[in-house]
Amino acid sequence: MSEAMWGGRFTKTTDEMINEFQASIGFDKRMYHEDIAGSIAHATMLAKAGIISVDDKDKIIAGLKDILAQIENGEFDFSVDLEDIHMNIEKRLTDAIGEAGGRLHTARSRNDQVALDTHMYVRRQVVEVQKEIQNLQQALVETAEKYGDVIMPGYTHLQRAQPILFAHHLMAYFGMLSRDFARFEGVYKRADIMPLGAGALAGTTFPIDREFVAKQLNFEAIYNNSLDAVSDRDYIMEFLSAASILMVHLSRLSEETILWCSREFSFVELDDAHCTGSSMMPQKKNPDVSELVRGKTGRVIGHLMAMLTTVKGLPLAYNKDLQEDKEGIFDAIDTVKFSLAVYAQLIRGMKVRKEVMMTAVAEDFSNATDLADYLVKKGMPFRQAHAVSGTAVHNCIAQGKYLKDMTLEEFKELSPLFEADIQEAISPETCVKNRNSFGGTSYQQVELQLKAAKELLAAEHKICDAAEKVQVNVQ
Amino acid sequence: MSEAMWGGRFTKTTDEMINEFQASIGFDKRMYHEDIAGSIAHATMLAKAGIISVDDKDKIIAGLKDILAQIENGEFDFSVDLEDIHMNIEKRLTDAIGEAGGRLHTARSRNDQVALDTHMYVRRQVVEVQKEIQNLQQALVETAEKYGDVIMPGYTHLQRAQPILFAHHLMAYFGMLSRDFARFEGVYKRADIMPLGAGALAGTTFPIDREFVAKQLNFEAIYNNSLDAVSDRDYIMEFLSAASILMVHLSRLSEETILWCSREFSFVELDDAHCTGSSMMPQKKNPDVSELVRGKTGRVIGHLMAMLTTVKGLPLAYNKDLQEDKEGIFDAIDTVKFSLAVYAQLIRGMKVRKEVMMTAVAEDFSNATDLADYLVKKGMPFRQAHAVSGTAVHNCIAQGKYLKDMTLEEFKELSPLFEADIQEAISPETCVKNRNSFGGTSYQQVELQLKAAKELLAAEHKICDAAEKVQVNVQ
Amino acid sequence: MSEAMWGGRFTKTTDEMINEFQASIGFDKRMYHEDIAGSIAHATMLAKAGIISVDDKDKIIAGLKDILAQIENGEFDFSVDLEDIHMNIEKRLTDAIGEAGGRLHTARSRNDQVALDTHMYVRRQVVEVQKEIQNLQQALVETAEKYGDVIMPGYTHLQRAQPILFAHHLMAYFGMLSRDFARFEGVYKRADIMPLGAGALAGTTFPIDREFVAKQLNFEAIYNNSLDAVSDRDYIMEFLSAASILMVHLSRLSEETILWCSREFSFVELDDAHCTGSSMMPQKKNPDVSELVRGKTGRVIGHLMAMLTTVKGLPLAYNKDLQEDKEGIFDAIDTVKFSLAVYAQLIRGMKVRKEVMMTAVAEDFSNATDLADYLVKKGMPFRQAHAVSGTAVHNCIAQGKYLKDMTLEEFKELSPLFEADIQEAISPETCVKNRNSFGGTSYQQVELQLKAAKELLAAEHKICDAAEKVQVNVQ
Amino acid sequence: MSEAMWGGRFTKTTDEMINEFQASIGFDKRMYHEDIAGSIAHATMLAKAGIISVDDKDKIIAGLKDILAQIENGEFDFSVDLEDIHMNIEKRLTDAIGEAGGRLHTARSRNDQVALDTHMYVRRQVVEVQKEIQNLQQALVETAEKYGDVIMPGYTHLQRAQPILFAHHLMAYFGMLSRDFARFEGVYKRADIMPLGAGALAGTTFPIDREFVAKQLNFEAIYNNSLDAVSDRDYIMEFLSAASILMVHLSRLSEETILWCSREFSFVELDDAHCTGSSMMPQKKNPDVSELVRGKTGRVIGHLMAMLTTVKGLPLAYNKDLQEDKEGIFDAIDTVKFSLAVYAQLIRGMKVRKEVMMTAVAEDFSNATDLADYLVKKGMPFRQAHAVSGTAVHNCIAQGKYLKDMTLEEFKELSPLFEADIQEAISPETCVKNRNSFGGTSYQQVELQLKAAKELLAAEHKICDAAEKVQVNVQ
Repeated sequence: MSEAMWGGRFTKTTDEMINEFQASIGFDKRMYHEDIAGSIAHATMLAKAGIISVDDKDKIIAGLKDILAQIENGEFDFSVDLEDIHMNIEKRLTDAIGEAGGRLHTARSRNDQVALDTHMYVRRQVVEVQKEIQNLQQALVETAEKYGDVIMPGYTHLQRAQPILFAHHLMAYFGMLSRDFARFEGVYKRADIMPLGAGALAGTTFPIDREFVAKQLNFEAIYNNSLDAVSDRDYIMEFLSAASILMVHLSRLSEETILWCSREFSFVELDDAHCTGSSMMPQKKNPDVSELVRGKTGRVIGHLMAMLTTVKGLPLAYNKDLQEDKEGIFDAIDTVKFSLAVYAQLIRGMKVRKEVMMTAVAEDFSNATDLADYLVKKGMPFRQAHAVSGTAVHNCIAQGKYLKDMTLEEFKELSPLFEADIQEAISPETCVKNRNSFGGTSYQQVELQLKAAKELLAAEHKICDAAEKVQVNVQ
Repeated sequence: MSEAMWGGRFTKTTDEMINEFQASIGFDKRMYHEDIAGSIAHATMLAKAGIISVDDKDKIIAGLKDILAQIENGEFDFSVDLEDIHMNIEKRLTDAIGEAGGRLHTARSRNDQVALDTHMYVRRQVVEVQKEIQNLQQALVETAEKYGDVIMPGYTHLQRAQPILFAHHLMAYFGMLSRDFARFEGVYKRADIMPLGAGALAGTTFPIDREFVAKQLNFEAIYNNSLDAVSDRDYIMEFLSAASILMVHLSRLSEETILWCSREFSFVELDDAHCTGSSMMPQKKNPDVSELVRGKTGRVIGHLMAMLTTVKGLPLAYNKDLQEDKEGIFDAIDTVKFSLAVYAQLIRGMKVRKEVMMTAVAEDFSNATDLADYLVKKGMPFRQAHAVSGTAVHNCIAQGKYLKDMTLEEFKELSPLFEADIQEAISPETCVKNRNSFGGTSYQQVELQLKAAKELLAAEHKICDAAEKVQVNVQ
Repeated sequence: MSEAMWGGRFTKTTDEMINEFQASIGFDKRMYHEDIAGSIAHATMLAKAGIISVDDKDKIIAGLKDILAQIENGEFDFSVDLEDIHMNIEKRLTDAIGEAGGRLHTARSRNDQVALDTHMYVRRQVVEVQKEIQNLQQALVETAEKYGDVIMPGYTHLQRAQPILFAHHLMAYFGMLSRDFARFEGVYKRADIMPLGAGALAGTTFPIDREFVAKQLNFEAIYNNSLDAVSDRDYIMEFLSAASILMVHLSRLSEETILWCSREFSFVELDDAHCTGSSMMPQKKNPDVSELVRGKTGRVIGHLMAMLTTVKGLPLAYNKDLQEDKEGIFDAIDTVKFSLAVYAQLIRGMKVRKEVMMTAVAEDFSNATDLADYLVKKGMPFRQAHAVSGTAVHNCIAQGKYLKDMTLEEFKELSPLFEADIQEAISPETCVKNRNSFGGTSYQQVELQLKAAKELLAAEHKICDAAEKVQVNVQ
Repeated sequence: MSEAMWGGRFTKTTDEMINEFQASIGFDKRMYHEDIAGSIAHATMLAKAGIISVDDKDKIIAGLKDILAQIENGEFDFSVDLEDIHMNIEKRLTDAIGEAGGRLHTARSRNDQVALDTHMYVRRQVVEVQKEIQNLQQALVETAEKYGDVIMPGYTHLQRAQPILFAHHLMAYFGMLSRDFARFEGVYKRADIMPLGAGALAGTTFPIDREFVAKQLNFEAIYNNSLDAVSDRDYIMEFLSAASILMVHLSRLSEETILWCSREFSFVELDDAHCTGSSMMPQKKNPDVSELVRGKTGRVIGHLMAMLTTVKGLPLAYNKDLQEDKEGIFDAIDTVKFSLAVYAQLIRGMKVRKEVMMTAVAEDFSNATDLADYLVKKGMPFRQAHAVSGTAVHNCIAQGKYLKDMTLEEFKELSPLFEADIQEAISPETCVKNRNSFGGTSYQQVELQLKAAKELLAAEHKICDAAEKVQVNVQ
């Protein structure tokens, strides 16, 4: 930081190199709007409490709005010497309006100021993330409806297990994203606590009115311990946790998309716009977007790890280590929002190869469970039926055929319980239709899921709407 | 897994070494109670739905209760050949009651069975963790009240910053733990979803009644997508996230305890019961417990990273990789519960050296902000007052004295605004008393905090009580 | 720790619960052999230096060998009250031989003693890991030779790219494992430094002879700074790093094995011994071993993260946090050794479906690069040739055929440079044969690789042999 | 990527948003020098092998040198549409020299090209890091020599343990850094392998000469498996591992520096240039640099975690996920180099308060071990002597005094072995002087350490010199 700011105590100015090392302006400038909004609320409160004059307050607010306009018009020249966004703005303000500018920082420390800005920024971004989650959920619902009757193999261990509806498969991701949405509500709650007024660590001797500031900035709660207010990075660690889990979900979707695009699966074709080619191999159409999202999962997890490690073992209250909180979450915010947005596009744009999936289902043993269930329904204990079905599969493999190719005699040799309805009972359509337990893959159950999904989307929509309204926008 | 279980399809039995590698009985046996409770609920539902006979159901339940008694009496011999807790119990059941035992697994797969057990186990442990959180919060409140008037230096950057109440410092941790409690409520919600009935991945063809099972087991919600039900490990990743953040908090408290126990700080003395000595150095009294908790923070973070990495990139639905979900969370549960319990003891047992803290506060410059604030209240702009105070500190250091040792003349040389009340204004007691903004360190504010804390504790208590009541205990 | 050990200074005994929390005997007992070997060397040196009598030394060594025999015969009763392996052995020794036992710990602290044991243990295990690496490398070479002429599709982005030899693909893993082997040589070097004699932190006042101890225990180097000797956990962090990278390699091989076993790829069939079935789906043959190894990658990475986080920010010298060093590395050692061993078996046992791979190669566009190269060799600039080949692929897809199905006329329409030899030039065999640049997939290059691999194996063999010889075994 | 590059196969251009998401030019432009050097070597080889004409080669090289000059003069306009540094340069080259530019990419793919650039970049940066390590080691040696006779308390568990030389303490970090240096030699070896010529994945059909390229670029080895060459990210994971361990070392030094700067310890004073003040508290002088370095440890560990997670489970060969390899390592390189450089400055600039340390040593019980040793040397078994010393400490604490304050009578009451020389035997200077075992803290041993350190520095210097000479600089 420049000599100007705490000159009295020091005999040397900070070394240039170190200056740059600890300057945060390169990344914290994205919080300029929050910094200005927070300062306006602070100044308004200071005047209301009689700590500064109304005249000073008016000058400060006018000056800050001016600076906001300059930044948004790209006319503001950020300076590394002024270290961070807070000092960049305050210095410019003081240059512009004189002594009144020097009064803005009364009853405030950079510790609670930066905490306020970050809380406001994260709170806003949580809503942005939630909106992108919804957008992808919406794309999943649309696509599930569009391909409502498509049957595909369901897998466990990447081995074909049982026939399922493609729509059912997509809706599994809807479920994951619903929980992601809910987790971010938790993050929102922990971000929606007002730290300003905590001072450097212990509160302030000025008769400030924190409730008034919280009201202006639409905070639901106020930290009731000043040490906690300036040291707390929970909402950042929690955001990164929620973001990591979300990215893990997208990495799973990516893995599947990549598999489905492979020549071997050929279940879907992505829109050319979501693929790239090769500089060497002319035939390539690579699902780069899915690969990148899968890759970027590591990135977000890395940010979480970084933050947990950084905070570990720090004594109270503020330590400079905590400045490391921003770059990671900023990058995570960008990554998560982008990954969600691009996946909504990709899902909407992908072409499902119904016939390939149907052929796949017809030519495997994913109906073996249904064969066993058939016997159980005729009275055979489950474990025994399982063994009979296993033997049938074994015989078919040895003979190079499928269960549908077995004659009734062959079935009867395995058990006298088999009757003429066995083939109907193990056709893929029957397999799907009959898994009609709640949450199962049957047509009826998937319809119920879609209905529930739309209701949830509407509820989520309301939550986002309400949360958007409390965000503060300087006019 | 043993030949018996899926013999039909295979021509060789699994290799011994691999057997052991993939057996989970060594760690999943701790879910025996959940497995039995889940099986009883499943059997009851199967009979109600007419899928098995009432007679079979009765045999099954009696058999399972028998096994439960054997396990709790230490008479059950767990077998690695039977791979996991589920097969160990089912095999013993079938040995005991014959064919009826073979019917228990009807309309169920190990995939949804293990998911059910883990959900129930985690759901129960979340409450246990929350109770330990409360216990430590309670210890903090008691200790804060016990030492209500003790003043200590507050730190930023481990430099003395401003005088604060020791109680205020402790209550910062109360705030952190409150958020931990709330985060675990989120985990509870995501654990409290019933997966049984999802089958292997796609639901089942049997006319099962999942709501009835959920009711028996007191689940608030049911997965409405079967693929999601068997693949979801969100609640485990989220538990580990919440646990990691909690451990980060305890690591901070540990760092401080270790500092306070050092000869240099000497702020507290731990009870001998929470310390150990040295095999070589007779004078040592080491705060081992705090060091261990700080160290174990890495352990829990490691489990979180392990889980995120493991799930990353897995296609739907179940993959064997997911078996890695248990050891980490089991160890994290033990570690977190223990760390909380031991800290409650340690905090209650520690002796605070009031006089050492008070001496510390008297002999430093942590009242320099109050000097600046004094001038601001007399009309000087903040940045200018800050500079004057800095100069005063600088002069004192040069002369080897403190602000309290300055004469009024010396003060007046720096600014004519200083008057006779300056000494009173910068005494530690005044510094503390005057930081009376909401959440500040003043006596009044700390009292308010303690009052709010007790109300919160009461509310948390109700939440735990209610959550404990829904846990299922086989009678 | 029990009262007996440092009774003088304390007025209370350590609380039971805490006792258990900090006891390490549960996991550090696996270092019993190292502890005894280290103590024998220490006692021998003490006698040689005249610090204890020869008689005491003889009693100590006889007593220790007795204890070793008891442990190896399963007759030793480990006690949690004695906290760790060191005290368990020392206490038993003193009980057995009296006062001489009390002299063993002269000029030694638990800090340097535990460091010695861990160094010796890790040093030995590094060699065990290296031997397992070699074993898997050997399996890869054998299998590559066994299937020397099998062509398969090579992939980038999981899209078929160019035909390659299956042997070439396997040998890529040989390369990775070679680097793993080399990395563990680095770990070995950092483990092979003798800490004993550092005392608690500062050396000892006794005239010990550390070189003599190092010679007895075959250490290459001795820590020349006592603080470093007792605080250093580099070799553990480095082991976990090397193990993590190794597991990442195995996770890649696992991903491929799982893909290859899928119905869609069907490139290989695993031995039944390396698979398991499903409790619900009779047809399933799951590549569980591969999935488990892929899953356990997260586990080892988690241990690395745990250790890095734990050591971060610790002041010198020993802190109790460092006790957390053992469980992670012990589990990582077991996991890595097992994963390597099981993969050597799996690779050796797997059946390669040559015809499936060959059909795959014949029916795709992985020869499109060769089409472009053909044109380049006739004089067309690369970027232009790439475009022509791209158009050819595009046309074929539109017409539902492959490049091999194009007539010469169709080729000539795209460029007059095409001639009759074009079909020969783009057959899979030609594509493979022609990639004869050093390290390429051609038959000739793969043979060279195999030759180099065998030479490397021989060299690695010598390294392991030499390293095994220096391990200390008490007779 | 722009339409131009693989237009033939595609019917749509890539979506703008995705374009930006996958563009790497924002960060990979820092490898411009490596890209150009690699292309020059490649072109030279192509001409030598007769694959392109000498005339084309000359044009290419002249064009590339032109571009290099433009970049270094800041006249090169990087384009996001051209995605990465490779295409930015190639496009500009082709614009400038026409068709010859199109021939540069013959027998090369972006996969091996980017691998080459990254290998060269990392190889160079490893040396830069090693030079910074040496610089800090040098600073430690100088400072240790400067304060050669300063005694301070040595700590375990942050409890005073035994008196040590300050120089001895500093030299513990020298030891850590020596291992860091050696670890980076391992990284260097794994970076120093030439991938070019691997093509996209399988080698090339052109008669290239990889040894010639390797010779031009001074690579010690060449990948002998093309799949491995383009998929290998070991050297990046290993760099991040080595960097993480290094940062863990610096975090320990930071923790200590921060402690030493605290009012409570007051062992050192940092140069004002390495500290900052507070915007609110005029008296503060914060060790920000140390805190930042400690905080940035998390950042580097996060990058390691990110990379391990990203590569986990990827099939061969290149996948787009791998593009995530660069930002993390680039940031880690900057962070590590900076942290080392700033610490060398900080160590050199710090003022050691000899008298404070000496007072500390005089007023504690860190000589209790020496008391016990005294008795052992008179014939008492160690465990018994330990107990006597513990009792002495206990008595002193009860009486508010130190061991030095005990009378000979008091000593004799505890054991008749005490004689008049006891006080001399437990003075701090004696304690230090007598710990003269190899690696101990005695004056003599520390001198030996310093001598060995200088020899090591000379050896490291030679290694860096040699490694610097092989780096390729385009003239």
